[in-house]
Amino acid sequence: MITTDLCIIGAGPVGLFAVFEAGLLKMRCHLIDALPQVGGQLSEIYPQKPIYDIPGYPEVKAQELVDNLMKQIEAFKPTFSLGERVELLDKQPDGSFIVGTNEGTLVHCQVVVIAGGLGCFEPRKPEIANLEQFEGKGVGYMVKNPELLRDRRVVLAGGGDSALDWTLYLANIAKEVTLVHRSDSFRGAPDSAEKVFDLASQGKINLILNSNISTISGNGVLKEVTVVNKDKSQHTFAADNLIALFGLTPKLGPIADWKLAIEKSAIRVDTVDYSTNVERIYAIGDINTYPGKLKLILCGFHEAALMCQSAFKYVFPSQKLSFKYTTVNGVPTF
Amino acid sequence: MITTDLCIIGAGPVGLFAVFEAGLLKMRCHLIDALPQVGGQLSEIYPQKPIYDIPGYPEVKAQELVDNLMKQIEAFKPTFSLGERVELLDKQPDGSFIVGTNEGTLVHCQVVVIAGGLGCFEPRKPEIANLEQFEGKGVGYMVKNPELLRDRRVVLAGGGDSALDWTLYLANIAKEVTLVHRSDSFRGAPDSAEKVFDLASQGKINLILNSNISTISGNGVLKEVTVVNKDKSQHTFAADNLIALFGLTPKLGPIADWKLAIEKSAIRVDTVDYSTNVERIYAIGDINTYPGKLKLILCGFHEAALMCQSAFKYVFPSQKLSFKYTTVNGVPTF
Repeated sequence: MITTDLCIIGAGPVGLFAVFEAGLLKMRCHLIDALPQVGGQLSEIYPQKPIYDIPGYPEVKAQELVDNLMKQIEAFKPTFSLGERVELLDKQPDGSFIVGTNEGTLVHCQVVVIAGGLGCFEPRKPEIANLEQFEGKGVGYMVKNPELLRDRRVVLAGGGDSALDWTLYLANIAKEVTLVHRSDSFRGAPDSAEKVFDLASQGKINLILNSNISTISGNGVLKEVTVVNKDKSQHTFAADNLIALFGLTPKLGPIADWKLAIEKSAIRVDTVDYSTNVERIYAIGDINTYPGKLKLILCGFHEAALMCQSAFKYVFPSQKLSFKYTTVNGVPTF
Repeated sequence: MITTDLCIIGAGPVGLFAVFEAGLLKMRCHLIDALPQVGGQLSEIYPQKPIYDIPGYPEVKAQELVDNLMKQIEAFKPTFSLGERVELLDKQPDGSFIVGTNEGTLVHCQVVVIAGGLGCFEPRKPEIANLEQFEGKGVGYMVKNPELLRDRRVVLAGGGDSALDWTLYLANIAKEVTLVHRSDSFRGAPDSAEKVFDLASQGKINLILNSNISTISGNGVLKEVTVVNKDKSQHTFAADNLIALFGLTPKLGPIADWKLAIEKSAIRVDTVDYSTNVERIYAIGDINTYPGKLKLILCGFHEAALMCQSAFKYVFPSQKLSFKYTTVNGVPTF
């Protein structure tokens, strides 16, 4: 049995930074993540991609940010169970929890922090009979590396910002881009939509509106896509890739059974301390929601800081919390 | 007359980052700061001091953080009025504002963002008759550079964390450290207080409890400090420096007349968007307060991001705001 103060579920950037804020208050952390390495989606999906919206970094590669966060929390000696999924949450008579994973790891902690980011979501899939048969064989739900789509015939489906942005981006890279959307207006940014209409009128992309993809076919890999219009007309064309961009839906796994209040497909929290409706369970980062919520890493950092101030009372019930700046004495170590 | 979308009062780290978040939404910013350079207290008080609690920076010099923020917002071409104080706020019939400074600069803007940090506060001073006569001549209210106190006889006054922390820090640097406190218990962190008591019992510092400083004297520069105990006994001793650490009180200047709700010596805001009680006026960073508030730069970054989403409706009333990630298309420029 691992004993710790905070058990953090999710070792993405927000979960990692929570270790720092916890450490300043002398609270120890154990992190569990289903991925085999720390960093969450940053390390898993786009390690070499530059990020532009981390305050103080005009540009930083995703993996570099993760490496820096690991260095920042080093002094607080966090422990990790990577490549494991949380399957068990057992409330103890004294209010503490035992968290268990699919690998049999047991963690006794005073507080549970759900810092699951995008990894707690899965793509919403269109209803196409043999869709899953072509997953990884031409069909995907996100663009991990646009270079893999260079000189390919790409079909994008969706009407939000992702569909619009990738249409614009891939127009310069792919051999052929076709955007299929069920309506004739877009939910995404008006200026992006305008640019997409412009490209279509210039013949640089194919725009198929008021239509859904009905069937896909191929011999092992995707070869053809058929769309059906609202007026029932059908149209079949050749395609190497189909990227369905219909947003995400939460995949909470056993966390869904913890009686947490769910709103807008996320865990509802109180902005005073990012606590959930269940005492001693907090949710920070992309997995939570509250009025004004933005799914930004920098917001998760703020949430982590306020969460720790609140979690302190469960870890050190008899101590008065004293807020201290690191500018005076630096970072204490354990 | 300068015309802009957001007029940001305060060009510290949080005010600077607000330019980035505003720029992503195509809103232009003009910043006004009483200091002659950007960066707020980071540049003014401790440019060469390392900061440890900026997420993703295990350590960064204060000025380096400011330089990086300036680089991050460069594409959005912010304009500045530095070395000027805001003296005027004039509501226009269409809801916009004209902001004026002591130098006669006039800024027409749709939204006012108060990002005044610690610069909007001044130290709370003890009641000692000739105190101000010795300011800068031995008497101070913060430790800007501890090296200037090396081998000096330093008197610290106060009972909070600053007084405790600097006592502990200066014990290794100063020739003599005396801590004067009006009570016999400290408001600061219990473990710091314990260390102070330890140093005192080892004779490494002088600890004068239940006492206040009554008079100070010197010939141009501070020479002696007299303390009076609750039991009326007095004690005079030689001192080179007196640092009074009684916290800060807000110095809002003309902003105090803007009918903003004030609470705990700060501007009360709504955490949905960090708006004040006055429409189109927001407050972000150390100057604001709300349940759970922490005066951390990283929290100000979050506040800036949410503020911009809300300010957008005043700048572009007929446009639908579409939240976009910089990871897909990078940072657009003006």
